[in-house]
Amino acid sequence: MENLIISLIFKDVSFSKEEINLILNKLESVSFKKGETLLKANQTVTNQYYVKNGCLRTYFMDKSGKEHTIQFAIKDWWISDYTAFFSSKKAIMTIECIQDTELYIISRKNMEKLYLEIPKLETFFRKKMEKSFASFQKRIIASLSESAKERYISFIKTYPNIEQLIKNYHIASYLGITTESLSRIRKEITEN
Amino acid sequence: MENLIISLIFKDVSFSKEEINLILNKLESVSFKKGETLLKANQTVTNQYYVKNGCLRTYFMDKSGKEHTIQFAIKDWWISDYTAFFSSKKAIMTIECIQDTELYIISRKNMEKLYLEIPKLETFFRKKMEKSFASFQKRIIASLSESAKERYISFIKTYPNIEQLIKNYHIASYLGITTESLSRIRKEITEN
Repeated sequence: MENLIISLIFKDVSFSKEEINLILNKLESVSFKKGETLLKANQTVTNQYYVKNGCLRTYFMDKSGKEHTIQFAIKDWWISDYTAFFSSKKAIMTIECIQDTELYIISRKNMEKLYLEIPKLETFFRKKMEKSFASFQKRIIASLSESAKERYISFIKTYPNIEQLIKNYHIASYLGITTESLSRIRKEITEN
Repeated sequence: MENLIISLIFKDVSFSKEEINLILNKLESVSFKKGETLLKANQTVTNQYYVKNGCLRTYFMDKSGKEHTIQFAIKDWWISDYTAFFSSKKAIMTIECIQDTELYIISRKNMEKLYLEIPKLETFFRKKMEKSFASFQKRIIASLSESAKERYISFIKTYPNIEQLIKNYHIASYLGITTESLSRIRKEITEN
């Protein structure tokens, strides 16, 4: 059972029994109900979260009170306010559960310890971060060069099967458009 | 002299003589003239570049032929088409020198070798990537929630003293606005 968690999270990285115990001692399992908040803006960020199942949304609220969805997270994704997590600063974003959610928590301090104890974990997270970095770069390109329709199609590819779980205004705020524009885009796609 | 290069690039990380030699054997020094291209869209990306001095611009050209500036790089920055670099795929962006530029080149293959030979290098680059990751997240938030004026002010903070080196349409394409809007914003800031 415990080995299952490790192979779920770290896929095909192989660990010794001692290493597995080191990791399990630093992972904490938690559950949240739909609507609950995992992290609020202005809180100090010390943890990142692995999504066992469920669905979450990270958003930024601007000065006028408008919410901007920065990221969704579904099964097998990691989530945190990374800007704050990496610098141990206060969150600028809020993370809410938009479905009942089960997570594994790991703190920054414990991650740094594990990197020293098990160097291949540092390699694992470095490679994960390279992928996220690349996807952020793609999103910046998309925000500068693509139409809302093209960005919506990328969104569906990035988060398959997520549309039935989340509200239209969440998708619209992720794409930086109004819910009316989102409806128009969907209609256009269905008609073609 | 050679130690100087290492301490320039890796700041306060300390290395043994053997480690310094391992690194120097994998670094290549190159120079480019203003206007020359370091990397072109559709080329296979095998290298990343450390800027010793000069100024570069990474841009993406969309289907209509319009250029979108994704990143500038000045002294002490690293630059590449990271989406392609991390996956050893073909570049989607072009990198051009907008000033005479001196660089150190390191290949992906050599970086992976060095990570195994000198684990603290993996830690160094992991931490560097965490910072870039955080700055990308901030830029996504900015593109969704900030006005062009606010984004221009962030740009000046991110790239101090760069304005005199680059053309107005480069800055405008980085901000996703027209050069006319950029002039208006600058005028507004000067008047206040």
